[in-house]
Amino acid sequence: MPPSSLLAVGTVAFDSIETPFGRAERILGGSATYIALAARVLGAPVRLSAVVGRDFPDRHVNALANQGVDLDGLVRDPDGDTFFWAGRYHYDLNNRDTLATHLNVLATFKPRLPPTYRDSAVVCLGNLDPVIQGEVLDQVDGPEGAGPALVVCDTMNYWISSVPEALAQTLRRVDVLVVNDAEARELSGEPNLVRAARRIRGMGPKTLVIKKGEHGALLFCGEGDPATVFSAPAFPLEDIHDPTGAGDTFLGGFAGHLARRLAVMGPAALRDPEALKHAVIVGSALASFVVEAFGPDRLWAVSPADLAARVAAFRQLSTIPDGLED
Amino acid sequence: MPPSSLLAVGTVAFDSIETPFGRAERILGGSATYIALAARVLGAPVRLSAVVGRDFPDRHVNALANQGVDLDGLVRDPDGDTFFWAGRYHYDLNNRDTLATHLNVLATFKPRLPPTYRDSAVVCLGNLDPVIQGEVLDQVDGPEGAGPALVVCDTMNYWISSVPEALAQTLRRVDVLVVNDAEARELSGEPNLVRAARRIRGMGPKTLVIKKGEHGALLFCGEGDPATVFSAPAFPLEDIHDPTGAGDTFLGGFAGHLARRLAVMGPAALRDPEALKHAVIVGSALASFVVEAFGPDRLWAVSPADLAARVAAFRQLSTIPDGLED
Repeated sequence: MPPSSLLAVGTVAFDSIETPFGRAERILGGSATYIALAARVLGAPVRLSAVVGRDFPDRHVNALANQGVDLDGLVRDPDGDTFFWAGRYHYDLNNRDTLATHLNVLATFKPRLPPTYRDSAVVCLGNLDPVIQGEVLDQVDGPEGAGPALVVCDTMNYWISSVPEALAQTLRRVDVLVVNDAEARELSGEPNLVRAARRIRGMGPKTLVIKKGEHGALLFCGEGDPATVFSAPAFPLEDIHDPTGAGDTFLGGFAGHLARRLAVMGPAALRDPEALKHAVIVGSALASFVVEAFGPDRLWAVSPADLAARVAAFRQLSTIPDGLED
Repeated sequence: MPPSSLLAVGTVAFDSIETPFGRAERILGGSATYIALAARVLGAPVRLSAVVGRDFPDRHVNALANQGVDLDGLVRDPDGDTFFWAGRYHYDLNNRDTLATHLNVLATFKPRLPPTYRDSAVVCLGNLDPVIQGEVLDQVDGPEGAGPALVVCDTMNYWISSVPEALAQTLRRVDVLVVNDAEARELSGEPNLVRAARRIRGMGPKTLVIKKGEHGALLFCGEGDPATVFSAPAFPLEDIHDPTGAGDTFLGGFAGHLARRLAVMGPAALRDPEALKHAVIVGSALASFVVEAFGPDRLWAVSPADLAARVAAFRQLSTIPDGLED
């Protein structure tokens, strides 16, 4: 059975990146780009909603189309340039300085979904103004007219501190929130991640993923309190060239796996701890590829077989051998 | 079969601790205390080598003796006071400031092992001057006269930067080094932990554990290159009252588990990835208890059944359900 349709909402951007291992100028980036490329590895029919400017070259459009990404919702604004971000990573790659953020056409963008996108089953909201995220959700009727089957959402500290009420409104419509540990602490006002998770799950998202960069990710899910907790490792890589896009790739892989399970299991997949744990491993595995090269370079070529091999390596890495309790 | 004998070498101290959840004045602490109390849970016959001063009360001596710890090597120096440490933890408990370090009797201590300690099989070297650690090893004949079967060692940034050559000499005699991620980076001069591990394993210890505090631990072991890598989660606790002693407790639990396996499997246990992975989980599980209360308070009462339950919870936390690769 083919996976359910997945709508990737976010940015398509130019990124200029400096790491201790090199630099890249104005390469293709943006949350929607990484989400779409990751979800494609899972075979999900991916629809992309984003805006680019007059400076966006056809070769990038063609490359995304060649991966099977539906670009009917990629708007080209002739009055401005594409969103641009520049950043420099520190020696240990755990911290970065933003050198430039030019919103350009993103500043005035209001997504209007093409009619063909309205039946999307899974909506994957990349980091954007929560008001915009809400306006996108308003336009999704879902496969049965009752709204999307699953909403997965990212956000960031800027929205948490500047528009907390708009964010709270959007979070009430979100099934899975994916944030990093600093964002989880800021959103909840709780330094302890278990308490932070409880508070955030009370804001709307019944499932929460806390990404911890080189330390893996924590999943909080299930109906009860305390939540079911799952700890996923990060893959110990010897050569990390560029962490850009790892979080968005995680999001796309996570949502892409659930789009597969949704097609097989129906809506039960979205609350099934096994499916959610698997989704975290798939997202983590895809993210471990993207950091091996600059920008999305490595992601274009990841095959389902590559993904399966990396997933097996994750299992090897974290399996506690039997017999300890004997 | 009873576990092999375990020699805990380190400090017995008074600690004054402030955390956001309270404070404790001059409570029992020190690396040898935590190592011994943790190893006892595994049933290992524990021998302790450390020094205390004229101010050390008999009730602490009696409490340790009541746990079955052999205190023939606990020296009381009548000419000074017991080692004293005071520290204050920050809001998120991940960082602390040292407010006072009074070496007192530790400044002139030279361990002389009692003859009954010389056949110790497992030597667990808490964080101390690497010269002292080496002098202790000189005095251990081991069960068969050929030296200890297993040497597990902790160290810290102070020794790495101030006496690198003495540390290098001691490391050549160490089987398992247990350090935190910052120490691994400093010791190796490598920010990437996989590369850091390779370099450290070239310095002597064939097995390396990198502790990452609230993010769990990484084990590097095996004969070949690349190493076998195992990622152990940290237990997500809602109430962490005091992180003091967590690292030493890990060390004692890790070494205590290997003392058990050594008795059953012989020296093969020390290079067996399954035994080493299990040792990391046992150490992590015991460390997850100690942080629940101030100082070693919680550790006194941990039973083998408590440990088994926590180990089962670790397994639940990190097991990737079957079927993902299908």
